[in-house]
Amino acid sequence: MDKRTGIIEEKIEAIKRLKPGLSGKDFLLTWEKSDEDLKTVLEVAAVLKEMRSANISPRVFDSGLAISNFRDNSTRTRFSFASAANLLGMAVQDLDEEKSQIAHGETVRETANMISFMSDVIGIRDDIFLGEGNKYMREVGLALDEGFEKGVLPVRPGIVNLQCDIDHPTQSMADLMHLQNVYGSLENLRGKKLVMSWAYSPSYGKPMSVPQGIIALMSRYGMHIELAYPEGYNLIPEIVELADKNSRTAGGSFRISHSMEDAMRDADIVYPKSWAPFHIMQQRTELLQKADRTGLKELEQVCLANNAKFRDWEFDDAKLKLTKNGKALYMHCLPADISGVSCERGEVSAPAFERYRIETYREAGFKPYIIAAMMLTNRFDNPGEVLTEIMHRNRRRVGVI
Amino acid sequence: MDKRTGIIEEKIEAIKRLKPGLSGKDFLLTWEKSDEDLKTVLEVAAVLKEMRSANISPRVFDSGLAISNFRDNSTRTRFSFASAANLLGMAVQDLDEEKSQIAHGETVRETANMISFMSDVIGIRDDIFLGEGNKYMREVGLALDEGFEKGVLPVRPGIVNLQCDIDHPTQSMADLMHLQNVYGSLENLRGKKLVMSWAYSPSYGKPMSVPQGIIALMSRYGMHIELAYPEGYNLIPEIVELADKNSRTAGGSFRISHSMEDAMRDADIVYPKSWAPFHIMQQRTELLQKADRTGLKELEQVCLANNAKFRDWEFDDAKLKLTKNGKALYMHCLPADISGVSCERGEVSAPAFERYRIETYREAGFKPYIIAAMMLTNRFDNPGEVLTEIMHRNRRRVGVI
Amino acid sequence: MDKRTGIIEEKIEAIKRLKPGLSGKDFLLTWEKSDEDLKTVLEVAAVLKEMRSANISPRVFDSGLAISNFRDNSTRTRFSFASAANLLGMAVQDLDEEKSQIAHGETVRETANMISFMSDVIGIRDDIFLGEGNKYMREVGLALDEGFEKGVLPVRPGIVNLQCDIDHPTQSMADLMHLQNVYGSLENLRGKKLVMSWAYSPSYGKPMSVPQGIIALMSRYGMHIELAYPEGYNLIPEIVELADKNSRTAGGSFRISHSMEDAMRDADIVYPKSWAPFHIMQQRTELLQKADRTGLKELEQVCLANNAKFRDWEFDDAKLKLTKNGKALYMHCLPADISGVSCERGEVSAPAFERYRIETYREAGFKPYIIAAMMLTNRFDNPGEVLTEIMHRNRRRVGVI
Repeated sequence: MDKRTGIIEEKIEAIKRLKPGLSGKDFLLTWEKSDEDLKTVLEVAAVLKEMRSANISPRVFDSGLAISNFRDNSTRTRFSFASAANLLGMAVQDLDEEKSQIAHGETVRETANMISFMSDVIGIRDDIFLGEGNKYMREVGLALDEGFEKGVLPVRPGIVNLQCDIDHPTQSMADLMHLQNVYGSLENLRGKKLVMSWAYSPSYGKPMSVPQGIIALMSRYGMHIELAYPEGYNLIPEIVELADKNSRTAGGSFRISHSMEDAMRDADIVYPKSWAPFHIMQQRTELLQKADRTGLKELEQVCLANNAKFRDWEFDDAKLKLTKNGKALYMHCLPADISGVSCERGEVSAPAFERYRIETYREAGFKPYIIAAMMLTNRFDNPGEVLTEIMHRNRRRVGVI
Repeated sequence: MDKRTGIIEEKIEAIKRLKPGLSGKDFLLTWEKSDEDLKTVLEVAAVLKEMRSANISPRVFDSGLAISNFRDNSTRTRFSFASAANLLGMAVQDLDEEKSQIAHGETVRETANMISFMSDVIGIRDDIFLGEGNKYMREVGLALDEGFEKGVLPVRPGIVNLQCDIDHPTQSMADLMHLQNVYGSLENLRGKKLVMSWAYSPSYGKPMSVPQGIIALMSRYGMHIELAYPEGYNLIPEIVELADKNSRTAGGSFRISHSMEDAMRDADIVYPKSWAPFHIMQQRTELLQKADRTGLKELEQVCLANNAKFRDWEFDDAKLKLTKNGKALYMHCLPADISGVSCERGEVSAPAFERYRIETYREAGFKPYIIAAMMLTNRFDNPGEVLTEIMHRNRRRVGVI
Repeated sequence: MDKRTGIIEEKIEAIKRLKPGLSGKDFLLTWEKSDEDLKTVLEVAAVLKEMRSANISPRVFDSGLAISNFRDNSTRTRFSFASAANLLGMAVQDLDEEKSQIAHGETVRETANMISFMSDVIGIRDDIFLGEGNKYMREVGLALDEGFEKGVLPVRPGIVNLQCDIDHPTQSMADLMHLQNVYGSLENLRGKKLVMSWAYSPSYGKPMSVPQGIIALMSRYGMHIELAYPEGYNLIPEIVELADKNSRTAGGSFRISHSMEDAMRDADIVYPKSWAPFHIMQQRTELLQKADRTGLKELEQVCLANNAKFRDWEFDDAKLKLTKNGKALYMHCLPADISGVSCERGEVSAPAFERYRIETYREAGFKPYIIAAMMLTNRFDNPGEVLTEIMHRNRRRVGVI
């Protein structure tokens, strides 16, 4: 364990040289965070992962609640959140609200306080309504601010965005950590070509938060980002502009194209994934708010019919062959729509997926540590010092101490 | 922290001078508890609250289960119970029984034992059927007694009543703790006028346990209690008698009146809250037991029509003005039916509620500590000694130790 | 506590002399385990039980998740699993999959990995489809093997079978522990007559895993096993053959008979319990897989009509009288169908059940410890050493340390 310990301690020293501004701030959008913030989250996550592998317990809560507020069913994110909370010593308490309602005002303010008397972290996933999810998180945040200021809450719990209508920061950060691992460092990402591509799916209305999160985050590391989608499948314009700006600032590039095949050429990294277009999401939100079932059915039909025109936007071995040396890194947030496996025809062919199946599992495996790092850096001013103390304490995670 | 520590230690010394009989006894009704019992719960709750604020962990379970047995959906009580259990080191395990059934006999005896092999505390909320909730808790208690005596259970778990048909002791005790904080001490409540008033609500069948719990408990502290409701909206007669007797014993007074406005005059504390009348609850229970849906619908109609006659039983600024100096303390167990916010017209006007919104949040914030105190005093003979040991141990709740 | 401590330490020394092969191996079927394996589980369970009674905390996880994957609703097993996990320091995370689906292939592989990034144990209960439950567990196991080998998972979580279509090892082992306690030792079971008898129930489709688990396990301890059921109510043939072989190897005997009364004569231990016949279960699985509701309804009718012919297969005082000295030990996995209590007519008469009610509770009380022992022996090579360390650590489960 000595060599391992040495590596961990070096990483911790590097963390101490960073000046993040994460403590006490909600993690809602990656683009609200500085480069040092993001680097800190990545490095803390890496240390927590190393610690766990070395059977060192990074528990920093003797008690405490992590509230999960999910407005959809998500086994993966639920487990990642629970894992992160548990690793640090918190128990998870689920808030099961009426999932189809958009709550505002007094309901939000009151509930936010009622669940927070003994909470340290609140994870929210609210990605159904365009224009609502992130807004809701901020409303919760303001209610918590007020509760804390007025002495209702002993602690202002930190909010972690577990996916909203705009961004999916725990996903994109886990993806970035995966790239960092595959390529050895963030610096090594410079100059790489990453293709975020729309892909065909027999389902409809998949959120835009993954592609948006990916282009907004990855554009900060000097990569050549290509966003490929069939005409009409636009994302939220402001976020595309942001990715464009990020790329220029970081010395990379950003382009939009409308052919999956063209986009794949010479790609180092490919992320083929279905999403519903911005204008459809806008209509859908209106219809959902009006509870217009007929309208929703009709929209679904139109949308599926339109999707069907782009059935050839499937990532398969032929497209893989077009990438750099025929072996770009395939990424996916999972579950993927795999042709002939989870659906008749989907985002990716079975052979292409199978080549990268284990890689996608590894990719997913970073998420619990990213969430744990977001929790830890939210609660502590000095994550480096805390990690050093954990090393000195040297408590085993499993064993008798 | 030194001054803070000093204050906590003083409070603990005061607890050591009390002689409660709480250990090993279920907490089912406040009126089964002595004044010293109640004072102990309040003071232990206060110390736990201070400890948590000072980042001192009062964990006293290295492992252990707190079972939550809820026969209705209650976010608030659920979170309070989970918070209390977690603070002391227990994990919550939910028992999801068929909620609409009234179980008796073998089913209760068996289930009570099956869930208790490793349980330390069982929290039960069963407020639907008049004459059933509290009875059910006692049946569970007897089953646990038998299981413990016969060597089935290594520990006799303590039961905490999280609301029944008769009383809501965690609510009324949290409310009392709030009053103690607002007025500085229980002694300072002497002579104050507290109005427990019925209020209009567009819903039907709200339990009587809050008003009953309030008048039964608050009448013990020398206050002038006024119970105001429209003719016919009686509570369980025995509890009203008890409140009357308590008041006389404690040197306060108790009266019933039928005008919200009259009642409010010179009130120090007001608690406007809807409930369904006793005779309606009796009929409702019969119909529920017979699963008579038509009968229930009819009863609801009759009841709502009757409620509608008393739409002016809304607490608003005009009524607030009638209270002592126009600024009585407004209390509510939440969620309140707020006119124009959560319903068209309800228990309280929006401006009146807004004045006290944060106060009602604070009021609710005492509940987790009250529940934790009930748990701790149930499990330990000598809460004062335990709290002293916790201070000496001096383990941080959040941090690396 | 000194004497108690001495007894625990003696037991631990005995465990150290055993050579189990449990570590890192899933617990799926008792007949895959050696006698030393089973003895180790029993003895570790006994020590954990003694420790808990002596307020010694056997916590060996500072953090960690125990995943519960239940494909039916089971309060008892759920609580047993949660209790075991909690005792050792793990938090339970529920995986709520679509309960009616049979998942295979990529879905299983992916989900198994996604839930396991920070899991130590996975408990699976899947007893609905004949030929599926155990198979599913093995598929999960293979997926976990792959994930661990390929570096996806930092730890290969251990699987505990919480009931499948073939076996119910946590039940049969808890039952064996009960017998060990009643008779003083496993050795004392030699020569005893145990009757596993079918019994009438108004319900249909009860799994065969309990009777199968019982005859397969109990036949290893030199008992005379009699399996009694009405003609046609066969169990899976391979398991009956296994029980037969086990009995011969262990110096006991095994016979099948078709009269409850005859079987009861001179029995030391009786286990009257309903199950659905093998051929019905086969048909049921086919119909379920085809989602043939009409077919299922028809099968149920046929089956209930057939059951009704054997309403006299009720264990009552008259049958009890036939047993050894009229006082055989009655066993049941609970809940029993008790005539006149939980149904009009069922597996056992009310007076007969009442005689043994507390005994059946005690029987059930061993299960959490059996599960905890399976978890602990799966995670640690040297359970005896671990238990010694726990004794030396001497941490109280409840109290301030």
